[in-house]
Amino acid sequence: MKIAIAQLNFHIGNFDGNVEKMLRSVADAKAQGADLVCFSELATCGYPPRDFLEFDDFLHLAEEAIARLARAAQGIAIVVGSPSRNPVVEGKDLYNSVYFLQDGQVRQVQHKTLLPTYDIFDEYRYFEPASSWQTVEFKGHRIALTVCEDIWNIGNENPLYTVCPLDEMMPEKPDLILNVSASPFAYDHADKRIEVLRANVDRYGIPLFYVNHCGAQTELIFDGGSLVMSPDGTVFDELPFFEECLRLYELEEVRKGGGTHRLQPRDKIALIHDAIVMGVRDYFGKLGFGKAIIGLSGGIDSAVVAALTARALGPENVRVLLMPSQFSSEHSVADARELARNINLQYDLIPIEPVYDAFMEALRPHFWAYPFNIAEENLQARARGVLLMAFSNKLGHILLNTTNKSEMAVGYGTLYGDLCGGLSVIGDVYKTEVYELARYINKDGELIPENIITKPPSAELRPNQKDTDSLPEYDLLDQILFQYIEKHQSPQDIVEMGFDEALVRRVLRLVNINEFKRYQTAPVLRVSPKAFGMGRRMPIVGKYLA
Amino acid sequence: MKIAIAQLNFHIGNFDGNVEKMLRSVADAKAQGADLVCFSELATCGYPPRDFLEFDDFLHLAEEAIARLARAAQGIAIVVGSPSRNPVVEGKDLYNSVYFLQDGQVRQVQHKTLLPTYDIFDEYRYFEPASSWQTVEFKGHRIALTVCEDIWNIGNENPLYTVCPLDEMMPEKPDLILNVSASPFAYDHADKRIEVLRANVDRYGIPLFYVNHCGAQTELIFDGGSLVMSPDGTVFDELPFFEECLRLYELEEVRKGGGTHRLQPRDKIALIHDAIVMGVRDYFGKLGFGKAIIGLSGGIDSAVVAALTARALGPENVRVLLMPSQFSSEHSVADARELARNINLQYDLIPIEPVYDAFMEALRPHFWAYPFNIAEENLQARARGVLLMAFSNKLGHILLNTTNKSEMAVGYGTLYGDLCGGLSVIGDVYKTEVYELARYINKDGELIPENIITKPPSAELRPNQKDTDSLPEYDLLDQILFQYIEKHQSPQDIVEMGFDEALVRRVLRLVNINEFKRYQTAPVLRVSPKAFGMGRRMPIVGKYLA
Repeated sequence: MKIAIAQLNFHIGNFDGNVEKMLRSVADAKAQGADLVCFSELATCGYPPRDFLEFDDFLHLAEEAIARLARAAQGIAIVVGSPSRNPVVEGKDLYNSVYFLQDGQVRQVQHKTLLPTYDIFDEYRYFEPASSWQTVEFKGHRIALTVCEDIWNIGNENPLYTVCPLDEMMPEKPDLILNVSASPFAYDHADKRIEVLRANVDRYGIPLFYVNHCGAQTELIFDGGSLVMSPDGTVFDELPFFEECLRLYELEEVRKGGGTHRLQPRDKIALIHDAIVMGVRDYFGKLGFGKAIIGLSGGIDSAVVAALTARALGPENVRVLLMPSQFSSEHSVADARELARNINLQYDLIPIEPVYDAFMEALRPHFWAYPFNIAEENLQARARGVLLMAFSNKLGHILLNTTNKSEMAVGYGTLYGDLCGGLSVIGDVYKTEVYELARYINKDGELIPENIITKPPSAELRPNQKDTDSLPEYDLLDQILFQYIEKHQSPQDIVEMGFDEALVRRVLRLVNINEFKRYQTAPVLRVSPKAFGMGRRMPIVGKYLA
Repeated sequence: MKIAIAQLNFHIGNFDGNVEKMLRSVADAKAQGADLVCFSELATCGYPPRDFLEFDDFLHLAEEAIARLARAAQGIAIVVGSPSRNPVVEGKDLYNSVYFLQDGQVRQVQHKTLLPTYDIFDEYRYFEPASSWQTVEFKGHRIALTVCEDIWNIGNENPLYTVCPLDEMMPEKPDLILNVSASPFAYDHADKRIEVLRANVDRYGIPLFYVNHCGAQTELIFDGGSLVMSPDGTVFDELPFFEECLRLYELEEVRKGGGTHRLQPRDKIALIHDAIVMGVRDYFGKLGFGKAIIGLSGGIDSAVVAALTARALGPENVRVLLMPSQFSSEHSVADARELARNINLQYDLIPIEPVYDAFMEALRPHFWAYPFNIAEENLQARARGVLLMAFSNKLGHILLNTTNKSEMAVGYGTLYGDLCGGLSVIGDVYKTEVYELARYINKDGELIPENIITKPPSAELRPNQKDTDSLPEYDLLDQILFQYIEKHQSPQDIVEMGFDEALVRRVLRLVNINEFKRYQTAPVLRVSPKAFGMGRRMPIVGKYLA
C-alpha cells in the first residue's frame, strides 16, 4: 500500500483555498499511485481556528469542505482533520476529528481524545474528548487514526492525561498508525517529536506516519517536519522544515526499517532563522499585504529584523526609516545606512528633533518644574512610533516591531513607541540569541555591519546612555530570565544557582510588573517553548513577586 | 448551626493580604457566634491566578496560607477555596479545591469537578477534575462542598459536562450545600445565578449557600451578590453587589424559607455603572496607583469615562487634558471644559496644531505627492496619545482608555492614538449604552452637559467629519454587532432579521479584520456576557468573513 503525506500550508477560515490546495494534492498523489493521502489536523479550517469554532456558520463551512473532499475520494482514500459535531447533548458541542474519506463518502470519523489545554493550546475550550475508538480497515490493512496529542501521553515522566487512545485501539490489532497533527515549532521541538514517536513505536511495534501542518498563523509557526517511523524506531523519513511537500511511501518498505535515520540538521539558530522568515512571510501573505516598514536605529535588533524581513519579503518590499535625535551617536545613522545599503533597502532619514521640540514646547507650561526623566525619553520613542505609523498608514505597509525577548521581559521599551508594530518579529529571541542570529545572517558575507554587532547596546534616549546603565549585562540577564520564564524557577532556586539575590528579585519583579506592556504589544512569532503572548497568561493586577 | 458568609475582595498573589483579611473575618464571625465561616473560590491566591499556578513557589505560598488559616480554625470551622496538588502522576498536577478546616487542621478537601473552560475561563489549563466525592459531617449536619461551576450543570438545555458532582454526593444524604465561587459579573448574571441555584434546590431539596468573590481583577469584575436559598426555592438573602460583606445565617431559619425573595434591584445600566466604578477603583488600588489622566474630546465617551473615574477615585485624583486641533469644533472645548467644571476635575488645554505641524513638516519630503488621508487623521490622534502618555510618565498617573465597544468592534479608533491607555473603561459598553450611562450619571443633576449627549458624534479628525460618514447610525450598528458578537449569528441569520445584506457583510468584515487592533488594546472591563479580550479569542490572520 502506498501512503502519501501532504504537508501543506493552510489558512484559517479560508475553506475554499484550503480545499482547493488539498484537491491538487489528492490529484497529485493519485497520479503518483498513492492508495491513501493524509492531510494534517483541522486542515479544512486551518489551525488554530480559535473562537471561530463557536460560530455555527463556520462549522457549516467545514462540513461543506469535508463533503467536497469526500467527493474527490475516488480511487484514493483521504485522511483529513476537521471539526465535527457532538450529537450528545451533554458535554462540549464539538469534536476535533480525523475523517477517513473513501469511495466518495465519509467512511469513518475518529475523534481526538487528548485535548491539549496548556501553553498556546485551548482545545478543551471547544472540544469534547473521544470516548470510543475504532480502527479502519483499508486494503487489507488496519489503520489506527489519531490526532496530534493522542500519541503524546506515552513516554513522559509526568503524563498529562489518564488515557492512551492507542491502548484502546490495540485489541483490534492495527498494523499502522496515522497521526494528523498541528504541532507548532519551537527550537527544541523536532527532537521531542522523534522521542514521542519512538515511544509509541516501541510500545506498539507498528509503523507510524505523522503528518504535520506547515505554515505560520499569526504568532504560531508550524514547521512541518512530518515523520515516517519504522517499527524498529528508525526515522524512515523526515519531511522538510518550513516547506510544503508531498511524498509517497510504500508501507512494506517502511515496515522493514533499516537503521538509517534520515534526519535534517537541527541547528537552533538556523531553525529560528528559518522559522522567523516563514512567520513574517505568512503574516504578510495571509493578510494580503506585501510590504513592510521598519525603524532602523543602528542597533542590533532592528538590523536583524530588517535582514530577516528582507529575506521573507524581498528587499524591494522593505522600507526603513532612520530617525536620529540629538542623543543619537554618529555611528547610529552611519551603521543603519550601511546596513540598508548592504541589503538593498530603500531608506529615508527623518531627524526627530523638530517634532521632539514641538512636544517639549507644548508641554513646557505643564512640565517646566519637573526634571528630565522617563517622560522625555519616551517622547522620543513615541515620536518615532508616530512617524513610522504615518508611513504605514500612508503607504499601506505593515510596521514591524523590533523588540527582543529580554526587553519585552523587563519592560525595557516604550509602549506606543518602539513597542509599536503589527508583528513582533524577534520578541521570542533573547538579546544574546539576537547576536547569534546576526552572526548567522552574516555567515556568507557581512550584511549586518560588524560595528552593529560589537558596539555596546544603547537606547540613545539620553546623553551617553547604555543599556547596562539600568540593566545587568545581557548574558547575565538572559540566564535569569530563562530560568524564570522557560523553567518556572522560584527566586530562591535561581539564587541557589549562583546569581545575586538582589538582582534576581529585581529582575523577576520587573518581569511581573511589566505585564501591562506585554498585554498591549503585537503578537510575537513563537520560536521557543515559552513565548510571550497566548502561551503565557499572566495577571496584570497581581502582587506575586511584584 | 450558624453559618457566616464572608464576601471579600481578594488580590491575586497577595497571600499575606488575603489571609489577614480572612483572619479578620474569622474573628468577626466567631465573635458573632458563627459555627462556620465560608470564603470564596481560590481565596488564598485570588481569582484568576492564571499561569502563576504553573509556579511551584506560588503553590507553596498557597499551602502556607491554608496552614495559617487552619491554625485559626479553633472554635469555628473555615471553608475556603485554594489550589491543591494532585498526588497521582497521570493528569494535571493541581486541583481547584475547597478546604474544610476545623480544630486547627485540614479536615477535608473536596476538589472541583466541573472546570469551566470557555469565554474568560481557562480552568482545565491547570486543574484535573475531581473523580471522587465525599460530604463533611459537622455538628450533626452533613455538608456537600462544591466549587462554583460544580452546581452549574443542572437545568441547562445544553449542559457542558457529562457529570453532576452533587448527584455523586447524594447517597450520603447531605442536608445542605455550600458553594464557594468566583463568578464574574455580567449585566445579566445575577438572575442567571438564581435560576441555577433554584435548579439545584429543586433537584436536591436542601438549602444552598453560595459565596461569591467581590472585587475586580484587571478586566474581570466579581460583583459579590452571594446567595442563600431555602429548600422551597426562595432567596433567603442576597448579599450586596460590589461590596465586601459578612453575614450570619441560622441554618434552621434558612431551611424554613418563607416565600419572600430578598433581592436587590438589578437595573442593567445601574449595574454596569457600579461595576465599572469598582473595576476602575480596584485597578488603581491593587496596582498601587492613585491618580488617572484622561483625554477629554468633548464627546460622550471621554465624558462618561471621566465621570465614572471621578466616582471611582475621587475628582481630586483625575486630571484631564483638552487637546483641540484645527478640526475641532468650538463646542468641543467648551463642552469638555463645562464637564470638567461640573465634576471638579483639574484640566489643562494643549492645542495640538503645533505638534501636528511639526509632524507634517517632517513628513512633507516623503508625503508631498499623496493626498490627505487616514495617515493625517491618525497623526492627530497619535499626537494626543503622546501628550497624554507624557503626562502619565511625568506625573505617575495611569492613562485611561475611552473607546467604546462599538468602535472597538469595527476598528474605529487609532492604534497608539485614542486606543492608548492602561485600562479600557467602557470597551465593553456599546455606544447606545454609553448614552444610557450618561443619562444615568446625570440622574441627580446635570454632570455631563446636555450638548455632549445630544450632538452628533464625531472624531473631528477632518473638517465637518461625523461618525456617520463612515459608519451606520449607532442604533443600527449596535444591533448588528450584538447579533454577531454576543449571539454568534451568521451573516445570513442577521440579514434575515431585516438588516441590509451589504451593510451586514461590511460590518462583520470590519469586526474580523480589526482583530489586530483589539489585540494591542488595553484590558477591557468586562460587563457583558461577551467582552473583547481574554473571553473572545480570535485569529488575527484569518479569512473568515474577512
